[in-house]
Amino acid sequence: MDAHILPVALDKAYRLINHGPTVLVSASFAGVDNAMAAAWSCALDFSPSRLTVVLDKHTKTRELAEKSGHFVIQVPTAAQLQLTHELGSRSLHQDPEKLARSGARLFRIAGCEAPMVEGCSAWLACKVLPEPHIQATYDLFIGEVVGAWADSRVFKNGHWDFEHAGADFRSLHYIAGGHFYAIGAPLTVAAV
Amino acid sequence: MDAHILPVALDKAYRLINHGPTVLVSASFAGVDNAMAAAWSCALDFSPSRLTVVLDKHTKTRELAEKSGHFVIQVPTAAQLQLTHELGSRSLHQDPEKLARSGARLFRIAGCEAPMVEGCSAWLACKVLPEPHIQATYDLFIGEVVGAWADSRVFKNGHWDFEHAGADFRSLHYIAGGHFYAIGAPLTVAAV
Repeated sequence: MDAHILPVALDKAYRLINHGPTVLVSASFAGVDNAMAAAWSCALDFSPSRLTVVLDKHTKTRELAEKSGHFVIQVPTAAQLQLTHELGSRSLHQDPEKLARSGARLFRIAGCEAPMVEGCSAWLACKVLPEPHIQATYDLFIGEVVGAWADSRVFKNGHWDFEHAGADFRSLHYIAGGHFYAIGAPLTVAAV
Repeated sequence: MDAHILPVALDKAYRLINHGPTVLVSASFAGVDNAMAAAWSCALDFSPSRLTVVLDKHTKTRELAEKSGHFVIQVPTAAQLQLTHELGSRSLHQDPEKLARSGARLFRIAGCEAPMVEGCSAWLACKVLPEPHIQATYDLFIGEVVGAWADSRVFKNGHWDFEHAGADFRSLHYIAGGHFYAIGAPLTVAAV
């Protein structure tokens, strides 16, 4: 594993996605790996650490997450802009070479079922918390975070440090079509 | 109503929150108005337009949304940084003057039950789509968007235009404590 990747305490894991980045979702079952982009993922609870993600019925990643009971939410960087868009545009159903064609390389962390995408800034390993009604009705999945890691060059001491990490590390925030924004400048308020 | 506020087509309403901004949630019941900040709100569907929001059991806004069946999700601007933090830190339960003390002023749009916070860049009027199990278990609410509006100085022709609207219009993305980021530079990918 890349020496920059360090564990994040589970009760601080929400901070990895609290600013609303577009994420990559990866999963694996019976030797088939996949990853997709998702703009619709959100923190749900601090402790136990939980999050939501919308996984459309047509995606292969959903099938792999449902069958294995595991998925990873990871935060791609501005350097992965094209990769993120390609993982969101191609489907493994139609294109068996999707991962290679999109330039995605996967790695595994010992003890985690699902594969992770190399080069991201943060990873949240999740166990599907089964809620059949909302999965079927809204494509909405709840993940319990069982492990979290971040690249210590951009997330340190429990806080993002986008302002010092360089433009390539900024998180991506998708709008529509091919349009994203990068995260911008830090703003700090006075205590209330 | 401010002449800059224009309606947004419901099937494009997801774009108002697709980039993961921290939002304000407002609601009203029996003459009591309130508004709070929420980092945990997310698009759920395009058409019908739906979104999710986490409303803690201790918040007055949740009580008002549950009793009235309506709430508004709105996107505060960088100019409202302190306001947003104050609306997220104070509770109407403890502080009856919360709105005035935080500097929040509300307005109404004809046909909408819930009040809206002045000075935001976008507003999504929602009807609670009752899902008692996830409301009770996860504090998770589903809203069906019944009306959407945006400030035409920063959202035009179905797209955000943060890059030309001036720093005060940028959306806020909360991390923790008093730390936020503003949305940053646009990034556009090549077609896949």
